[in-house]
Amino acid sequence: MPELRKDPIIGRWVIIATDRSKRPMDLQVPAPEIRGGFCPFCPGNEDKTPPEIMAYRRNGGKPDSSGWHLRVVPNKFPALQIEGDLDRRGEGMFDRMNGLGAHEVVIESPDHTKSTAGLSEKELEEVLWAYRDRMLDLKKDKRFRYILVFKNHGSAAGASLEHSHSQIIALPIVPKRVSEEIEGSKRYFAYKERCVYCDIVRQELESGVRVIQENRRFIAVSPFTPRFPFETWLMPKTHQSNFEDILKEEIEQLAQILKDLLLRMETVLNCPPFNFLLHTAPINDKDSEYYHWHFEIIPKLTKVAGFEWGTGFYINPTPPEEATKFLREAQIMP
Amino acid sequence: MPELRKDPIIGRWVIIATDRSKRPMDLQVPAPEIRGGFCPFCPGNEDKTPPEIMAYRRNGGKPDSSGWHLRVVPNKFPALQIEGDLDRRGEGMFDRMNGLGAHEVVIESPDHTKSTAGLSEKELEEVLWAYRDRMLDLKKDKRFRYILVFKNHGSAAGASLEHSHSQIIALPIVPKRVSEEIEGSKRYFAYKERCVYCDIVRQELESGVRVIQENRRFIAVSPFTPRFPFETWLMPKTHQSNFEDILKEEIEQLAQILKDLLLRMETVLNCPPFNFLLHTAPINDKDSEYYHWHFEIIPKLTKVAGFEWGTGFYINPTPPEEATKFLREAQIMP
Repeated sequence: MPELRKDPIIGRWVIIATDRSKRPMDLQVPAPEIRGGFCPFCPGNEDKTPPEIMAYRRNGGKPDSSGWHLRVVPNKFPALQIEGDLDRRGEGMFDRMNGLGAHEVVIESPDHTKSTAGLSEKELEEVLWAYRDRMLDLKKDKRFRYILVFKNHGSAAGASLEHSHSQIIALPIVPKRVSEEIEGSKRYFAYKERCVYCDIVRQELESGVRVIQENRRFIAVSPFTPRFPFETWLMPKTHQSNFEDILKEEIEQLAQILKDLLLRMETVLNCPPFNFLLHTAPINDKDSEYYHWHFEIIPKLTKVAGFEWGTGFYINPTPPEEATKFLREAQIMP
Repeated sequence: MPELRKDPIIGRWVIIATDRSKRPMDLQVPAPEIRGGFCPFCPGNEDKTPPEIMAYRRNGGKPDSSGWHLRVVPNKFPALQIEGDLDRRGEGMFDRMNGLGAHEVVIESPDHTKSTAGLSEKELEEVLWAYRDRMLDLKKDKRFRYILVFKNHGSAAGASLEHSHSQIIALPIVPKRVSEEIEGSKRYFAYKERCVYCDIVRQELESGVRVIQENRRFIAVSPFTPRFPFETWLMPKTHQSNFEDILKEEIEQLAQILKDLLLRMETVLNCPPFNFLLHTAPINDKDSEYYHWHFEIIPKLTKVAGFEWGTGFYINPTPPEEATKFLREAQIMP
C-alpha cells in the first residue's frame, strides 16, 4: 500500500510509492556531457565575464587575470539588478516592485571538465568559503532580506553552462519555501521548545534507517518526506541557524561529506543532473533557536511537472529508506 | 529592469524578466509525437484496462465493450489505493497514514491521434461532464477531502501514454497549494468582504492587458504573477466556489473557451507539452463566499527545476502582458 507522509516542518503531505518502487536503474537519465567549445568561465577568458567581484588566487595576480582557482563574477544575464531602489507600487489590487537584487556566479574551478563531485575536498572547502564570504558581504546591503545559494548541474537541471559553477542571489524578499520553513519551525518551537531540525537529527541518528553518511559534524539523510527520488539533506548535527557562522572545522567536515555524497549519487545514479540549495536563516533573523541551516540536494530524475507545481502535491516513487540503502552501499572511489 | 510581483492570493513573489524577455520562438520545445504502437486506451483493448467505472456510449453497449466515446477507468498503476482505512500513526516525531484514495483515468476520445485541442466542442463538453460526474460520485466517500482533476500532455509534462486522457485523484487530504489558496482567499475576504478571484476578474476585464479571450461566462487571462511563460488561468466571470455546481450553459461556454485557448497555445507555441489542473473548493467547504474555482494551464517550456522546487521562487522570462498579446493575436483554425 502506498503511504502518505507528512513533512514535520512545513506540513506538506507526500505520497511514497511502496509496491512498485523505482530503483536507480529505473530512474537513470542521460548524464550531462562535457561538449567543450568556447567557455567564458575558463582561464584566459576573464574578459568575457563582467569584472570579478572576488577571486581566490595563490599567485597574487591582478583581478580578472588568470591564475585564480576560484572566481566570483556578476551573472552576465542577471535575474535581478543591483542598482536602484525598490519603488514598491500598486496596479489596482496588484503589488509590484523593482527587481532589485544581486545575482552572482561562483566559478568553482579553473578546470572546465571537473564536476563539483570531482573537486578535491580542499577545492570544495574553498567553494564553501566563497559562499560564506559573499554572504557576509551581501548582508551589508540593507535592501536585501535573503541570500540564496544554489547550484544547477546539467541542462536538465537548469544549467546553461557546463563549466562547474554555483549561483548566489540576494533578494529583497524571503522566498516562500524558506518562510514556510521558518513559520513551521517557529510553530514547532512554540509547542516543544526545541528546534525541529535538531529533533530530526536526533531521531534519524537513533533509528539509522535514513542515514546515508555521517561524520563528526554533519549527517546526510534521506528526509522522511522527500518530494523526489534520492532527495537528500545535509544537516549540521548541532544547532546553527545561520550558515555564515560556520566554523573552519565545520567547513572541512562539510566539504568531506558533500563530496562523499555527490560521489555516491554519481555512482548510484550514473552522474545525474542535480540541484542543490542552501537553506539558511533570513538576514534579519540572526541566531534563532528554531531554525537550522541545511543543504538540500535533488537529483533531477523524474519528469513530474505542472501537476506538482499546481498542487504542491508530490508522488515519490522511491521510498527514502530504499534510496538510503542504495547510497549507503555505493562503492565510491575517493 | 526586471520586476518583482506579488501574487494577490497566496502572497508569493515572482521575478518577471522584462529586458530580455523570451518570445515564443525562444521557448519552443519538441511537440509530443504520436508514435502509435499498442495502446490500452484504444477501442478493442477494453480488457487491457481495469474494468471501467463509467463510460459515455450512444449505442447502449455493455461495459468494457467498444462503441464508447468517453471512458473512465481506474489507473492501472494507481498512486493511491481505494481499499482500506487511513490508519493514521506516528514514527517518533513523524506522521504517516495509508495511501488511501482513488486514481482514475478519463480516456477523452476513442481516437488515438486526437489531442485535447483537437476534440470538437461537443466532445470537450463530455470530458467536462465526466469530470463533474466522477466528482459527484467520489464526494460520497467520506474518507476523501479533495478531488483533483488534471491532465499531463506529452512525456515532458509527465504523460506516460500518448492517447489523450485526463486524471482524477481523490485524496484524504487537501493538497498544500489548494489550502494556500483557500487560506489566502479567506484572508482577503476577511479584509475586503469580497472574493479575491472576483476582484481579479473585474480588474482584468477593466484593464484588458492580460485578457486573452472571453465569452459570456468565462475569461482566459495571463495571471499577474505567472510562474511560467504562457501560464494561463480560466475563470468563471461570476462567483462559484465548486466546479461540480457548473450549469449546462457554463459547460458549453467552458468547452468553447478551453478549446480556443488550447488551439491558441498550439499555434503560438507549436503544440507544446502542457499540464492543466482544476482548482476547486475542498469537499467539506461547500458554497464558500471566498473561493472561486478555476483552471490553470501551464505549457511545459522551460527546464527550471530543483531551484524552484527548493525555494518556491520563480523567475519567469516572459511577461504575462506579452504572452497575452501572442495568444490573443494567434490565427487559429476552429
